[in-house]
Amino acid sequence: MSGIFITLEGPDGSGKSTITELIVEYLKDLNIDFIVTREPGGTSIGEDIRNIILDKKNTNMSPRTEALLYAASRSQHVYEKIRPALEEGKVVLSERFVLSSLVYQGIGRELGVSDVKAINDFGIEGVNPDLILFFDIDPVEALSRKTGENSGDRLEMEGINFHREVYNGYLKLISMYPENIKVIDASKSVEETFEEVKNELDKIFKKGGPLK
Amino acid sequence: MSGIFITLEGPDGSGKSTITELIVEYLKDLNIDFIVTREPGGTSIGEDIRNIILDKKNTNMSPRTEALLYAASRSQHVYEKIRPALEEGKVVLSERFVLSSLVYQGIGRELGVSDVKAINDFGIEGVNPDLILFFDIDPVEALSRKTGENSGDRLEMEGINFHREVYNGYLKLISMYPENIKVIDASKSVEETFEEVKNELDKIFKKGGPLK
Repeated sequence: MSGIFITLEGPDGSGKSTITELIVEYLKDLNIDFIVTREPGGTSIGEDIRNIILDKKNTNMSPRTEALLYAASRSQHVYEKIRPALEEGKVVLSERFVLSSLVYQGIGRELGVSDVKAINDFGIEGVNPDLILFFDIDPVEALSRKTGENSGDRLEMEGINFHREVYNGYLKLISMYPENIKVIDASKSVEETFEEVKNELDKIFKKGGPLK
Repeated sequence: MSGIFITLEGPDGSGKSTITELIVEYLKDLNIDFIVTREPGGTSIGEDIRNIILDKKNTNMSPRTEALLYAASRSQHVYEKIRPALEEGKVVLSERFVLSSLVYQGIGRELGVSDVKAINDFGIEGVNPDLILFFDIDPVEALSRKTGENSGDRLEMEGINFHREVYNGYLKLISMYPENIKVIDASKSVEETFEEVKNELDKIFKKGGPLK
């Protein structure tokens, strides 16, 4: 596969969507073919699965069911969208990927990182990111940024303790699997945050990358 | 857990539903508490997942997505219905369980038996059947029995070669994991087939079982 796979990870409200838009402008300026996608979802089947996961009537969903549904949605995402784009040589930008499940289900739901990694590895068949951008911000600050947005779905109703556990989980995983993960300080302004991201992108796309 | 978990496996049209009804009468006569369930489905969340799997618009579903969705549905089924009933000391009868996925996804879809077993083991957390009844019948004969019923969903539209592979897969798995599996000749009349099943039930419920 000749494309480049970049994922954006971090707490809700850490600025992943805003920065994605700026990466899109960056890639357009360089005339690089790309697709933008997100999880859970990204495909019609994935959206159907996402609706089951986020449906407020499903509060009795078991943590293992939730983890398997995320893995199923991701598997279809890889099969239908990510792998074909990479095979065509495109850049693929995805908000969230396997790391999110390791954190939210493996650590947050206490299912174990290695077990959750195993069901995801079954689903993605070796399609791992070339670069993971982690947006580092205090989860309380991140959540407060989202006030006024469409908050209130089942996951966001979880208490702040859960969000703090998730944040600490990210830091733990980054220390366990530092390869390909770049930590971006997301507490600063959008411009400053993107400047850090741009440095990482330049390493790929301006030095030895496809445009060299 | 003090209950007894019995699953019915075999090709479509092998008589699982008919025999389930007769087992129900048998248990009622002995005054034994039981629940009857089926896969995929068995819970509200499971039915939502079943609808995604069987939806004709989803013909581009990847085999790995399908396998993860079956495992997700099964996980919820165990969590919400099977484990609680077993903990209350009930008999649980389920049409299809993990063996179906090992056959249909592991062998039929060529995903590998051990990988499909691993994602299911993640979901069921050690809740394995005490007795698996396999209804042995030629898959062509079994399918012809179903003519006139609600046929035509996505799985039944698969060619006869797929059904034959599935049948051979069952035989292979039974030789690999013979423990707890009883092969029932399902090519005979309903009465003769149930007579064989009754012999197996008597071993549990009339000799050393809960009613001794």
